[in-house]
Amino acid sequence: MSNPKQLCVQSLQWTGHSLKVLDQRLLPEQIHYDEYSDAAGVTEAIRSMRVRGAPAIGIAAAYGVALSAIRHYPAADWRQRVTADIGMLAASRPTAVNLFWALDRMRKQLDNGDGQPVAALSALAEQIHAEDFAANRAMGERGADLLGESKAVLTHCNAGALATGGYGTALGVIRSAFQRGHLQQVFAAETRPWLQGARLTVWELAQDRIPATLIADSAAAWLMKSGRIDWIVVGADRIAANGDVANKIGTYSLAVLAGRHGVKVMVAAPTSTFDFSLENGDGIEIEERHPGELLPDCYQGDGSLVSAWNPVFDVTPAALITAIVTERGVVLNPGEQGVRSLAI
Amino acid sequence: MSNPKQLCVQSLQWTGHSLKVLDQRLLPEQIHYDEYSDAAGVTEAIRSMRVRGAPAIGIAAAYGVALSAIRHYPAADWRQRVTADIGMLAASRPTAVNLFWALDRMRKQLDNGDGQPVAALSALAEQIHAEDFAANRAMGERGADLLGESKAVLTHCNAGALATGGYGTALGVIRSAFQRGHLQQVFAAETRPWLQGARLTVWELAQDRIPATLIADSAAAWLMKSGRIDWIVVGADRIAANGDVANKIGTYSLAVLAGRHGVKVMVAAPTSTFDFSLENGDGIEIEERHPGELLPDCYQGDGSLVSAWNPVFDVTPAALITAIVTERGVVLNPGEQGVRSLAI
Repeated sequence: MSNPKQLCVQSLQWTGHSLKVLDQRLLPEQIHYDEYSDAAGVTEAIRSMRVRGAPAIGIAAAYGVALSAIRHYPAADWRQRVTADIGMLAASRPTAVNLFWALDRMRKQLDNGDGQPVAALSALAEQIHAEDFAANRAMGERGADLLGESKAVLTHCNAGALATGGYGTALGVIRSAFQRGHLQQVFAAETRPWLQGARLTVWELAQDRIPATLIADSAAAWLMKSGRIDWIVVGADRIAANGDVANKIGTYSLAVLAGRHGVKVMVAAPTSTFDFSLENGDGIEIEERHPGELLPDCYQGDGSLVSAWNPVFDVTPAALITAIVTERGVVLNPGEQGVRSLAI
Repeated sequence: MSNPKQLCVQSLQWTGHSLKVLDQRLLPEQIHYDEYSDAAGVTEAIRSMRVRGAPAIGIAAAYGVALSAIRHYPAADWRQRVTADIGMLAASRPTAVNLFWALDRMRKQLDNGDGQPVAALSALAEQIHAEDFAANRAMGERGADLLGESKAVLTHCNAGALATGGYGTALGVIRSAFQRGHLQQVFAAETRPWLQGARLTVWELAQDRIPATLIADSAAAWLMKSGRIDWIVVGADRIAANGDVANKIGTYSLAVLAGRHGVKVMVAAPTSTFDFSLENGDGIEIEERHPGELLPDCYQGDGSLVSAWNPVFDVTPAALITAIVTERGVVLNPGEQGVRSLAI
């Protein structure tokens, strides 16, 4: 199943000998795919945020390993070269655990050595992609069950088809709920500094003809106070064993504000996002990106007095989350018991 | 006292026959003053946000009335024309009450009719300007007393010299505290959609050599959780009798978040910001600006499915505010008693 059913835009397209990556930095103005035929190219695509979103990063990295095998097999040192490429891919971004999860699966296949390496590694990457798509669909249904008759929700960043193997985690839930006919309006926080909400989420929703209303991140509390939304639905980049969730900067803020306003918080994420090696969220490495993403150009390099603090993720304590929705099941009130019940 | 002591940049410069207005939309890249010689020009400068900030809007409008008198006196219908110009200026923006407060003072002078009208109205506008500057200085000292030995604070939007008659309300407090030697770092929220924090506050702080660190609005909660700030210091656009505060969108969010993190909230505003006609904040008109300030260009006009909700102010309940600092005194815990104690 190399081509998940095209319900939505595909940010990653596998040709069998190359990976086409939709450059998400150019959306919504331009739809442009770059084509990569080696792991170095895929690493750069992740690092530069051409492809972003925790599940999509994992899938892209898996394809990167397949490309490495295609390139290096059957040279004498092909196994070392592929292993080195796995290390390079793992160093592309630090926070999303799906990256390490996907690379671990690819490494095990490599070490295992069953079958013809190129075919086996390519097949596993395609399988990881297809599984993610299927997980999205399952989460969509479970999440829509939870939303019930909710008429309006708020989402943050982009946890859509673009961020995943297709369909989306948070936006998958929103798509499924919209198809059921109850959900009528989706508020999207613009999500500074990269504006994934404004550029990507609104674009995806418009493509599916789901009414989207963009807000400034700082308007979310005022929106909640107005009583217009009853759920916040977001994705995740890493979930610790106790249910603490690392996600796009601003998620923690939304969760605190939701608590005050009687708004419920849903995190939709495949179990590949779980990191059972971490007891809680304190151990999650939070990526800090360049101050230049925030500072006006005229201050670039003027580091003595003017700086910027640019963490691009934060950690939301499990106690602030109403439900974590995965392809394997839903954990209600994860603050009470964590998410170990969903471990295989 | 037509030229308040030049401690800081002056966003408004009165020449005696025209008003020079620093175009704040061009900062920090460009320092450009437009010169206006009639009330229509000043109205447009306010509406277009060349000049912004509640006290500065009030001062600009007062000068606009003086310019109207210069233009129309001694025509037979000069009084009607100036009255009409006052109406035009009052309709420029809805939320900041300083605008209506300044125009009321000018109207009373007009109706009163003492002295030569041009000289009297010009003198009153200059007085309003000078009083605001003096109020800023007084607030700076009172606010710095409250900050005590605080080493780091967060401010939102721009409540600085640019937004006032000079020196600033929130930034006046920060300037005074920095001069005392305790305050070492000022975090500035970038303040979407106009980025007043990134463009104006950081610029003002850099000019005064106060270390400034810019953050995305959505990173404020994560900053508070890190324990690095102990006060939020903001200005205000209107304060109701019970102490509810209208200010830049995002202020309400910050105040809720501050409560959870043990961070204190200071509102610094001259008493011209008080609106005793309103029992509480529910009656404050909240300006909503064009969706185009948020939406990517490609969605402009695509109103069927994609929209934006762009309120540019919100109301913070008095109960979330630690102190309201004015030139007449400080109200601690305004949620308990409101601000009527500071009425004349």
